[in-house]
This record gives sequence, structure tokens and C-alpha cells, in this order.
Amino acid sequence: MAKLQKFTCVDDVPNLEQALQECIDIKNNPLGTPNFGKNKTVGLVFLNPSLRTRISMQKACQNLGLNYIIINAGQDAWTWELHDGAVMDGTTVEHIKDAAKVLSEYCDVIAIRCFPAFKDKEEDTQDKVLNQFIEHATVPIISLESATRHPLQSFTDMLTIKENWKENRKPKVVLTWAPHVKSIAHSVANSFCEWVKEIDADVTVTFPEGYDLDTEYTDGLTITNDQDEALKDADFIYVKNWSSFSDYGATPEVKGDWLLTLEKLKQTNNAKVMHCLPVRRNVEISDEVLDSENALVYQQAGNRLITAQWVLKNIL
Amino acid sequence: MAKLQKFTCVDDVPNLEQALQECIDIKNNPLGTPNFGKNKTVGLVFLNPSLRTRISMQKACQNLGLNYIIINAGQDAWTWELHDGAVMDGTTVEHIKDAAKVLSEYCDVIAIRCFPAFKDKEEDTQDKVLNQFIEHATVPIISLESATRHPLQSFTDMLTIKENWKENRKPKVVLTWAPHVKSIAHSVANSFCEWVKEIDADVTVTFPEGYDLDTEYTDGLTITNDQDEALKDADFIYVKNWSSFSDYGATPEVKGDWLLTLEKLKQTNNAKVMHCLPVRRNVEISDEVLDSENALVYQQAGNRLITAQWVLKNIL
Amino acid sequence: MAKLQKFTCVDDVPNLEQALQECIDIKNNPLGTPNFGKNKTVGLVFLNPSLRTRISMQKACQNLGLNYIIINAGQDAWTWELHDGAVMDGTTVEHIKDAAKVLSEYCDVIAIRCFPAFKDKEEDTQDKVLNQFIEHATVPIISLESATRHPLQSFTDMLTIKENWKENRKPKVVLTWAPHVKSIAHSVANSFCEWVKEIDADVTVTFPEGYDLDTEYTDGLTITNDQDEALKDADFIYVKNWSSFSDYGATPEVKGDWLLTLEKLKQTNNAKVMHCLPVRRNVEISDEVLDSENALVYQQAGNRLITAQWVLKNIL
Repeated sequence: MAKLQKFTCVDDVPNLEQALQECIDIKNNPLGTPNFGKNKTVGLVFLNPSLRTRISMQKACQNLGLNYIIINAGQDAWTWELHDGAVMDGTTVEHIKDAAKVLSEYCDVIAIRCFPAFKDKEEDTQDKVLNQFIEHATVPIISLESATRHPLQSFTDMLTIKENWKENRKPKVVLTWAPHVKSIAHSVANSFCEWVKEIDADVTVTFPEGYDLDTEYTDGLTITNDQDEALKDADFIYVKNWSSFSDYGATPEVKGDWLLTLEKLKQTNNAKVMHCLPVRRNVEISDEVLDSENALVYQQAGNRLITAQWVLKNIL
Repeated sequence: MAKLQKFTCVDDVPNLEQALQECIDIKNNPLGTPNFGKNKTVGLVFLNPSLRTRISMQKACQNLGLNYIIINAGQDAWTWELHDGAVMDGTTVEHIKDAAKVLSEYCDVIAIRCFPAFKDKEEDTQDKVLNQFIEHATVPIISLESATRHPLQSFTDMLTIKENWKENRKPKVVLTWAPHVKSIAHSVANSFCEWVKEIDADVTVTFPEGYDLDTEYTDGLTITNDQDEALKDADFIYVKNWSSFSDYGATPEVKGDWLLTLEKLKQTNNAKVMHCLPVRRNVEISDEVLDSENALVYQQAGNRLITAQWVLKNIL
Repeated sequence: MAKLQKFTCVDDVPNLEQALQECIDIKNNPLGTPNFGKNKTVGLVFLNPSLRTRISMQKACQNLGLNYIIINAGQDAWTWELHDGAVMDGTTVEHIKDAAKVLSEYCDVIAIRCFPAFKDKEEDTQDKVLNQFIEHATVPIISLESATRHPLQSFTDMLTIKENWKENRKPKVVLTWAPHVKSIAHSVANSFCEWVKEIDADVTVTFPEGYDLDTEYTDGLTITNDQDEALKDADFIYVKNWSSFSDYGATPEVKGDWLLTLEKLKQTNNAKVMHCLPVRRNVEISDEVLDSENALVYQQAGNRLITAQWVLKNIL
């Protein structure tokens, strides 16, 4: 496969089926190329908090013999100016074009996490931070979750579905909204829709009225506000909270109970239950479901390492 | 020696005398097993600040060729839910059982620091965070200081005493309370009591009225509120502040002067003075004592590396 | 060359011309000594934020095969007591002499960043934190920027000038003050003056009235408040903001426009423009200048790695 130029969305992977097969090979032999990363450095830039992504990327670098440097940009208040031509007499301390060029001096690839600010829908939707970084950096860029997508999570989710589906028919995959205590970004949900379209599956997305997603991601998928209907005969249920896209970031009142319980699971085809974690137990998914054989959540977490290794191997 | 299942208290070390001898061997040749850690990863989880422990663990990993990943949980506000069955609609973002299982996916051993919260005596005394982590993780756990104990510090202290005692009689070891400016945890004092009982020594613990320790740790040791009496003929003085255990966390007014000075040292058998650092100079111990030949505090700090290496070697 | 005892100012480098030549050799072959650092550990202590310095030092360690441990002292509120004999019953938690001695137990060299506090001119001017660290540590010390100097930056700047000057005459080098939005330390400006005196150049320093530097650094250099006069026929322009030294830390009102524009560059000998970054675009330097062929700023950033490697190689 040709080297990846960047890894930010499903379109960056030329052949997903082949990539997933290569992931399984990596999982069978994660330490097979210990000298791959010799004298190469990965910059891990976090503008927002990260635990799973941070840990799995480090472990992936270690398995590949790669050096890495962690930059906690948010923490050190490294506020970037995003606007061309700005007179920087305010609170931004460095222009994103300078940050991207400087980091390119030290790193062979830059992986960056930048959540949506939820201040300007257009700025978020256009993924302005990530895309300016791509434009100005002179090395390849990996998204560790941007305003619109979380591609490493979705790649991992596809791998986990592949590992758990052995039947000779398309699985029914349901992405269901779940309750939460605060306004949550769309990136995991968007990204899941984008990636799941590329595998052989029947996909239904369900959410309460007012919690629509950007149709750029959901177009072509079955959409319903009726969770029971959606869950019927499901083989995989992906549970995730998100806020409204049309009324950007809003969290309107919800009717009915959207917590995924064992009772609700009975309508399904003994569905496997997925969540990117961290999960609010008994708010999003009940203890009984999470602690049952149906839950794939720890396997998903472990698979983060595998897809991280695949991306690093194919971008360097 | 059989592999350690965990390292959280003195009982986790099957043979302390042998372990101390092995520590001396490590000190003589700290770089003797550079490939020991190949392709193994240590997770270093800090729910509370740490400097010495953080640095000595990293250096120990480096000496053993181990990979490590640092997780500053407190800093990233990774607040864990501790209660089974909790409806997580409050401030906790991940259940400790999920955190433990997820970290186990990436790490071969997890070392964790979690101070007491001083909100619920029972929760602290039962070491609820540490013990739930042990219960739910699928890899061995090392305590980097818990609500009740600081085993790496105490193991180090035993090594330091051993290195500094060549006479053919039991040394007199005194654990003395010292003044401080705020309420301090019991872990170092508890742990010291627990470990020093396992070496061949006469031990006295002295503290002002109201500053009693948990008798689970002090039972069998000589206890007195008279510091002068305690210090008489001492060979080793271990200085440490702690708050009240019975009136949990309280810091009642203290009569008399508990600062360890050169004058007080005159009553002793030219005692060696120990402290886990950081020390409040001229509040806990006077400059003259700390800067004298009697102080072992920097040797203690250096020995933290040795015991960390021993634990990593025997748990992996 | 004999090993460096410390790296804090230009006087610590015995032969700058030779050192710069060695830097060019390193740049041609940065990975030439991958086993140099085997089993050696660098302590990187940050009492203040750092990005470029933090990243370039890590990459330099990686290139040399050195282990390193990062200590974010400021972040963990590791407040040091600086005064001998202090009764530490206040907010300082460890005496600097103890911190220095303890870190020396784990590290073969300690690199430390400590900005001026701007509370006590004398304390800053005497570089009290850095110098006490040098006094009490038992291993060599590298300054990662102190209250008075930023030697790794200035060393890098000399290398960048050397790389960009091929004519058979002395270059005219101008250090010019630039506007900023807040009170900035003198360290980069001081240090630049100190180092540039040691290369073969005609040097002019220009700043608005009230923004004088410590004459200890500027003595022997041409000083003027007329920026136009200074820029005339310049070959290199080093742009930097700083606050008043005589009225310590003050930022008096400035007459005239000190922003470096393309218009101003016309007076020069097609001067190369330097800045240590981060730069406030269109406040210190205009976009047109920064994005032109004249700007050396990214080359400077890249060269930070080279001088960091030189220092580590010559101090260990």
C-alpha cells in the first residue's frame, strides 16, 4: 500500500478491508517490527485531555521502536491564532502556521487532538485547527480526534466488529444515542457513521428528536427516533451521547428512557454492545449490560493499540 | 523467589531479609539486567502529585529496559467512581473498574498513587481506591503510596538502616512525630511501623498527645508521648509529621518543642537521622542536623531507585 | 575539548568558533553517536512553561541515546525555598539545596528552566535559583533559560548567523526591540548581546527610550534609540521585546512604530530576520516579513536541536 499522506477520515485509507486484515496480522504479532521506528520521532500534541488515545499511541510507538514527544498544548496555555493576517495583540500567543512549521522541524509525523470549541459552528464543522495544521506542517498529520471526527476510534470499532462477526450475512449495526450529563461532541458519532458505511453492514442510527447529526455523515443510513424499532434484531449496538447538530451544541429535553438495559437488549439478536469509553454507568448503559458477555468495550480499548500501530506503520 | 502478585504492604514480600540482600546486589550493579524489561510496559498512574516516586520509578524502568507510560490522572481530572451500582450522573467520569480493566489492556504492571481524601475515615482506612484497582485490574499492582501505606518508601528505609548498621546488637530505632504547617497523611508513619517490625530492631514511636496512629500498625511497638525519653540512646531517628488518627485528620495544639535539633541529638547514641523528604527545614528538623554527617536523607532518596528496581524485577 | 562544568552563559564555552564548527558537523550527521548516552539520564526541570526548549531537548536526548526524565516543577507546585536558614513554615515545600541534591541522586546532568519572578530585581539579576542549584547539585547544570540568560537560544542564533553569512566582511547585526502586549523578560536580549560579542560582527542594539538593557550585557555595543538609523545596511536583524531594566519590568509608553515591516527592511542590506519564537505576528514582525525569504525563524527553531546535542555531548 502507498504511504498515507494523512490520517484524519475514512477516505484517507485506500482499502479498508485490506487495512483491517493487516490489523489482525498486527494483533497476532504486535512486536514483529521492533526496529521500524528507529530514529523517527512522533509528536503527540494534545490541545484537549486524553487518556486512552494518549496511552495507546505511546504503547504503539514503543512496540514499533519509535521515539515520541508529548506536547500538552492546552495545559501550557499554548493558545493558537487561527486567522490569517491577524494582528496578534490579544490572547493568542503563536500562530498555528508557526506552530505547525516549528513542530515539523522536530517530528517525522505529528498526531494532534483538538476538540470543537462549540463557539462557532462553521469553524468546528470545517475542522479549522486540524486543517490549518495539515496545510502548514511539512510532515504527515494524524488526527487524535478533531472537531468533526475520531478516526482512530472508528477504525478500531470496525476492527472489533470484524473480529466479532463470523456469520454469512450482513450484520445489523445500530448507533444509538444515550443520555449524558453534559453537552458532548459529535466526533465519535460522525466518524462511526462514516466508517461503518464502508463495511458490509445494515446500519440504523437512532436518537431522540432534536439530537440530529450532520447529514453529511448520516446520509444513506436508516434514521429513526424510535429506539425500540432500531434495536430490533440488532447484531451490534454502538452507544454514544451527542448534542444537537442543527441547534449546535444544544441538549433539549428528552422523552422516554434511552438508557441501554438488559431488558432492551432482549429485542435484539443477542447484540454485542460497544462504547468508546469512558462510559457513564447506569446513565448510558446499565451495569448488567456492561458486565455481561455482550459487552465488547474492553476489547475495543485494547484494539486502539492495534489500529494506532497500523496508522503509524503506514504513514511513516 | 516466586513472583510478587502485588506490592502494597510488607506482607507482599515473602522474605524481607533476602529482599534487602538482593537490593544491595542491585545497588552494586544497577545496570546488570538491561534487557529484563524488553517489550514490557509499566503504567505509572498518579492521582496525586509526586516527584521522588515519579523520578525514581522512571529511572528504575530505564535501568531495567522497561517501557513506561505516565498517567497524570488527577491533573486531567479523571475522577473515578468508587461505588458499585452508582448511577453516574454526577462528577465522576469513569468507574474505577473500567479504568482498571482498560489500563490492564496496555500495561504489564500498573503502579498507582492515591492519597487519602480525609473525607471518610473508613474509605481511607480500607484503602478503597487501591483495593478496587487490585480487584478489577488483570495485571499486578504496585502501590506508589496509598491512603494507608507508602511501601516503597518503607522498603527503602529498611535498606538504608541495614546499610548503616554494622554492630552486633539490635539498633534502637525511634519514629518521632515532627511539627508541620498542615494536616499530613499517616501513610509513611504507618508503613514505617509495619516494615520496621520485620527487621531486628528495638522500636519506639513518640508523638504528642492527640497524634496517635492506627494501633493496627503500632501494636507491639513501644509508644510514648515523651520525645526525650524516646530519643535516649537512639541509633536511628525517623522524623515525620502526621495528623491525628482517632480524631481523623485533626491537628490539635501541641505542647513543647518537637523540632529535632542538634541539642536533642545529644541524648542519642550519635543517631542517624532519616526523613522521606521533602522536609520543612527548621520546622521538622533543624538545618544543623540536616546538614550534618548524621543525616541519611539523600542516601534514602538515592535508595528509592534500588527498591523500585527490586519490586519491578520481582513482580514482572 | 575538556568537558563543560556547566552551560549557563557564553563564558562556559571555551572556544565558540570551534563549538560552532562542531555544531555544523552534528547537523550533517545528527545520529552519528547513537550509543553516546547509554545508561545516562538527563533531568529536565521546568519551573516555567516551555515548548521549543522542551521538545528540542527531548529530541536531542533521543538522537544521542540518552534517557531523560521531565519534571514539571511549576505545575506540581513544587515551590522551593531559596533562603539559607529559613524557618519553612510558609508556602515553600522544599529547600532548593535539598531539591538539587535529591535530583543529583537520579540524574547525570540537570537542565533547568527558571524565569525571573520580577518581584526582586536583585534576586533576578543574581540568578538566584540557577546559581543555588549549581552550588548544591553534585552533577553539571544546563540552563534552559534563567532570569538573566537563554544560552541555548543564543548559541543557536550564532549558529544560524554563521550558516547564513558567507561574505568576506563582518556582518552588521542589529538587535531591535519590538512591541508586545505584556512585560517580557530580558534573558533572550541579554544573552544575544553576550554571545554576539564573541563572533566577528558589528553589533547595534536599538530600543525606545525607557527600554534600556542591563549595561553588563550591552557594554561595548553600539546603542541607539533610532531604529531607522540602526537598521541602515543591516545584514541580520534580531527582533525581540523586553521590558525596562532600570525601571525593572516597567513597560513605558512608546512613541513611533517599532513593528518590523517590509518597508523598514528596505533600508537594510536585504537583511535576514531572526526571532526566537513564538512571535506575535503583525505586532512584532509583519506577516510579509515572516513569510518572506528573509525570515530565518524556522531554521533557528530547527537549530535548537543541534546546539542542544552539542551541549549534552560536551557536558557528559
